[in-house]
Amino acid sequence: MEKVKLKTNILKREIINIFKKFGLSNDHAIISANALINAELVGAYGHGLSRLKMYCDRISKKVINPKPKIKIKKISPSISHIDANNSIGFVAADIAIKQAIKNTKKNGIGMVAVKNSGHYGLSGYYAEQAVKKNLITMIYTNAPPAVAPHGALKSLFGTNPICFGTPTGSKIPFILDTSISMINRGKIRVAARNNQRIPEGVALDKFGKPTIDAKKALEGVQLPIAGFRGSGLAWMVDILSGVLTGGNHAGRVKDPFDDFSGPQNIGHLFITFKTNLFVNNFNSRIKDNIKTIKRLPKINGVKEIMYPGQNKYKRFKINSKKDIKVSEIVKKDLKILQS
Amino acid sequence: MEKVKLKTNILKREIINIFKKFGLSNDHAIISANALINAELVGAYGHGLSRLKMYCDRISKKVINPKPKIKIKKISPSISHIDANNSIGFVAADIAIKQAIKNTKKNGIGMVAVKNSGHYGLSGYYAEQAVKKNLITMIYTNAPPAVAPHGALKSLFGTNPICFGTPTGSKIPFILDTSISMINRGKIRVAARNNQRIPEGVALDKFGKPTIDAKKALEGVQLPIAGFRGSGLAWMVDILSGVLTGGNHAGRVKDPFDDFSGPQNIGHLFITFKTNLFVNNFNSRIKDNIKTIKRLPKINGVKEIMYPGQNKYKRFKINSKKDIKVSEIVKKDLKILQS
Repeated sequence: MEKVKLKTNILKREIINIFKKFGLSNDHAIISANALINAELVGAYGHGLSRLKMYCDRISKKVINPKPKIKIKKISPSISHIDANNSIGFVAADIAIKQAIKNTKKNGIGMVAVKNSGHYGLSGYYAEQAVKKNLITMIYTNAPPAVAPHGALKSLFGTNPICFGTPTGSKIPFILDTSISMINRGKIRVAARNNQRIPEGVALDKFGKPTIDAKKALEGVQLPIAGFRGSGLAWMVDILSGVLTGGNHAGRVKDPFDDFSGPQNIGHLFITFKTNLFVNNFNSRIKDNIKTIKRLPKINGVKEIMYPGQNKYKRFKINSKKDIKVSEIVKKDLKILQS
Repeated sequence: MEKVKLKTNILKREIINIFKKFGLSNDHAIISANALINAELVGAYGHGLSRLKMYCDRISKKVINPKPKIKIKKISPSISHIDANNSIGFVAADIAIKQAIKNTKKNGIGMVAVKNSGHYGLSGYYAEQAVKKNLITMIYTNAPPAVAPHGALKSLFGTNPICFGTPTGSKIPFILDTSISMINRGKIRVAARNNQRIPEGVALDKFGKPTIDAKKALEGVQLPIAGFRGSGLAWMVDILSGVLTGGNHAGRVKDPFDDFSGPQNIGHLFITFKTNLFVNNFNSRIKDNIKTIKRLPKINGVKEIMYPGQNKYKRFKINSKKDIKVSEIVKKDLKILQS
């Protein structure tokens, strides 16, 4: 974040001030603003400024607690349980990944479960924190209903990302952060706000018919990757982040944009472990792994075989040198929220 | 396995005797025969008797060690590292899952990495052991090159399954055991042996062209699920089971059927943890989760929304009441191996 440009810095300051105006502490406002700015810089606009007004609305309607009393309970030297007290998700996730990193010290592996949290943006953003401490990490969170279980006509699973991060022996981490949905729900939402189409084959409308209309897709069902397999992976994530942690599950996480009837009570699970548990040359092994794969013969038109996280890192580097472009809708949001 | 029928019991005895004839101890022969019989009973024929001759051939050619000195090294109270000394994979995996279960006791989470192992059959078979002890488990293994990384023209990743198991509060466990390949390599192999076709869109021949010829597919490339996402998941599994553990990785695991130039040195990773770490009513929570999902409106023609492992359990129950059908090729194999 060091290289964020002037206007981006002003923008960040504005977001911090907005969050503080809505009751967040200075620390929590900074954590939240950093996460939103990061989403913009890596090009994950569906997790960026387009969500700012939603967070503030949820605080106003008392379904996000701006002054949470977050409790961290030690389960064992390796494991902690966090009750986030309906904090904004960014803060819960930030505390959780830091706790997981700490828990790793004693036995080489750490686990932190979170309940009573909310949408925290990109899993990969927290994975990066662990990877910077030279740890491997696996992160799971559930989300509001968006994807239909295989065989069902109604959405129930969230886009339930599977996230895996590892050091690579280079400055660009391997961060797989893949939704189990054919399309990111945030992207559909941005498309709907901007009256853009979505690709074919990624969503059904509320009647179960294929659609390329983003607004109809938001009312309908997103399709899971790989049919029964993707549905099974989404189910796994719901169990790990919801059933296990004490969070909501089985489709009971409320949509943060549409449902202000109560807090989301999203659950998250963070697992971290050391890279040198079993080999003393992990970095050279993974460098060799990546190099070997990059050297494979390529499909026509492919210049480089990219590992997960590499493109995102490139986008971050490029975007960090420019000012963030703020859409008209977000400009309006900022004006309303500041006034 | 209690209900295995008479002829199946005779068959199992034959397999045990064959493995013993090839130098395995009585214990190791039983572990290996049980795994092969189980694969047949759950309908995973590609991991069953069709592989028996391959295992024996590898022992004969001294690339599986029938009398391994398996070393278990304690890394921390939660973590162990196993050097399987090129044992048959079944034995390494059986020791590993039992060690992971033990390691879970002290801190609630256990991890076991294995190196110098071989093909162990179905991950789900080992997951069941942990689930029977009321633990959640995640299991990863790599495998010989079969799937091309996204953008590459050459296969490098194995079918690299992601396996997740959890108790369900009922006798049928939730066992997700999903290959990252569009098709199971074992199924292609069985199809090739029986001169059957494979489905469209699951494999390319060695020239990069789509094929439904099983033999051509074996020489070519299997396609990953979900493009870049599936490729990323396969890469994750290669890192977790190969790079991390000290096993082979980056496409260096030898094909057990075709390459007798040395041991496979496959790596595996087993993670287990308790269900009641964060909630005291996990069983009722997961029962509610499954019930809620099963109650969703269904697509026309779907009678029941099944959770992963449910169909396999049903097949096991049905097949356990019948004798295993042995194909002509396997009959011939058995004759050769017994003589």
